[in-house]
Amino acid sequence: MRTSSEGGSNIPEVVILRLPLYVRILTQLREEGIDVVSSRDLGERLNVTPAQIRKDLSYFGRFGKQGRGYNVNYLVGELRRVLGLDRDWNAAVVGVGRLGRAIISYPGFAPEGFKVVAALDSDPSQVGRQVDVVTVRPMDDLGRVIAEQKIDIGIVAVPAAQAQPVINRLVECGIKAILNYAPIAPQVPQDVRVRNIDPVLGLQTMTYHLKTMKERKGKQG
Amino acid sequence: MRTSSEGGSNIPEVVILRLPLYVRILTQLREEGIDVVSSRDLGERLNVTPAQIRKDLSYFGRFGKQGRGYNVNYLVGELRRVLGLDRDWNAAVVGVGRLGRAIISYPGFAPEGFKVVAALDSDPSQVGRQVDVVTVRPMDDLGRVIAEQKIDIGIVAVPAAQAQPVINRLVECGIKAILNYAPIAPQVPQDVRVRNIDPVLGLQTMTYHLKTMKERKGKQG
Repeated sequence: MRTSSEGGSNIPEVVILRLPLYVRILTQLREEGIDVVSSRDLGERLNVTPAQIRKDLSYFGRFGKQGRGYNVNYLVGELRRVLGLDRDWNAAVVGVGRLGRAIISYPGFAPEGFKVVAALDSDPSQVGRQVDVVTVRPMDDLGRVIAEQKIDIGIVAVPAAQAQPVINRLVECGIKAILNYAPIAPQVPQDVRVRNIDPVLGLQTMTYHLKTMKERKGKQG
Repeated sequence: MRTSSEGGSNIPEVVILRLPLYVRILTQLREEGIDVVSSRDLGERLNVTPAQIRKDLSYFGRFGKQGRGYNVNYLVGELRRVLGLDRDWNAAVVGVGRLGRAIISYPGFAPEGFKVVAALDSDPSQVGRQVDVVTVRPMDDLGRVIAEQKIDIGIVAVPAAQAQPVINRLVECGIKAILNYAPIAPQVPQDVRVRNIDPVLGLQTMTYHLKTMKERKGKQG
């Protein structure tokens, strides 16, 4: 199992994957004016067991008191700090077609501390164009743009056939976190993280459920 | 553990979640002209062990012969059939703001058998507008639209504050599969599946990795 280290202890990757959801739910609770939450209530909202919640949070210190629940505000703050969400991160979008332009203009990133500060495209006719607040740079400038703009995250919005070569270029230029919108399963070195944003994959995991429900209904009817 | 039934056997939900990725990779292999693949090669491409591959596929019958690998073309076809990807599914988009319009025009759905055949919005000024090939209908028509157009999938592209009420309406109208683009963690009954498309959550699972790598680098330097 892939693990990460925080203060000497090893945190499984699956726990890291759940934490942003904890932050999301706890932030909702805070907005609802709720000060304290039990692992049971939190578990119900997240579809995981209270024991799992307690185990997940135990990696990061003692947040709750037996029988008293968690202080919502404190827990949100600590989890945000642990996850590195208490600072801004700069991102560059590669590919400024319809999808790339929608990503650059997406209003959900900046309030969460993710700033799209650069855009690149291999098509000379796109270079120099203004998209929202960024000016499109040529792909050949990738290394320079990453260094100058202190880019931590590469966002890939090129067609499927170009995605793996673009990801290779990002990795060569030292990028360790990639958000990939192309419908491929990218190959990256062990020390690079990729998250795939792929609505078709999401849909394809639900059709099995739809199909078997229809079959069952057919048998009953 | 949540399970599904196919031919009497129980298939864990986590296996169902992996299968579309298998289909994706196998389709890539087929396009590369590869006829036969070993569980080892497949595992390397998917970042899972060969034993896991063999176990996952064993739920659906005997696809491979010991030491001879899997027939790529046959396996793609069977997995597509198992997942219900050998037919079309109709979807309705709720919310036709910038995001909703981008989803309706997204070129990746139709080739995979997902047809956006309807769009709805609660804003009267949007109703009647043409977006790509669909005409925006009022939210009050939801039940009628779902029945008339044989909608299986609801795609939610409304702001966060409206998302849970919209999802409740979809569930009331009998929808069992929801693709949610709003940045919330929706609550749905057990028999409804939701997949969240949320780029911010994806980014937030990578910042921990970026942060700890920077800290390690800082200590070394």
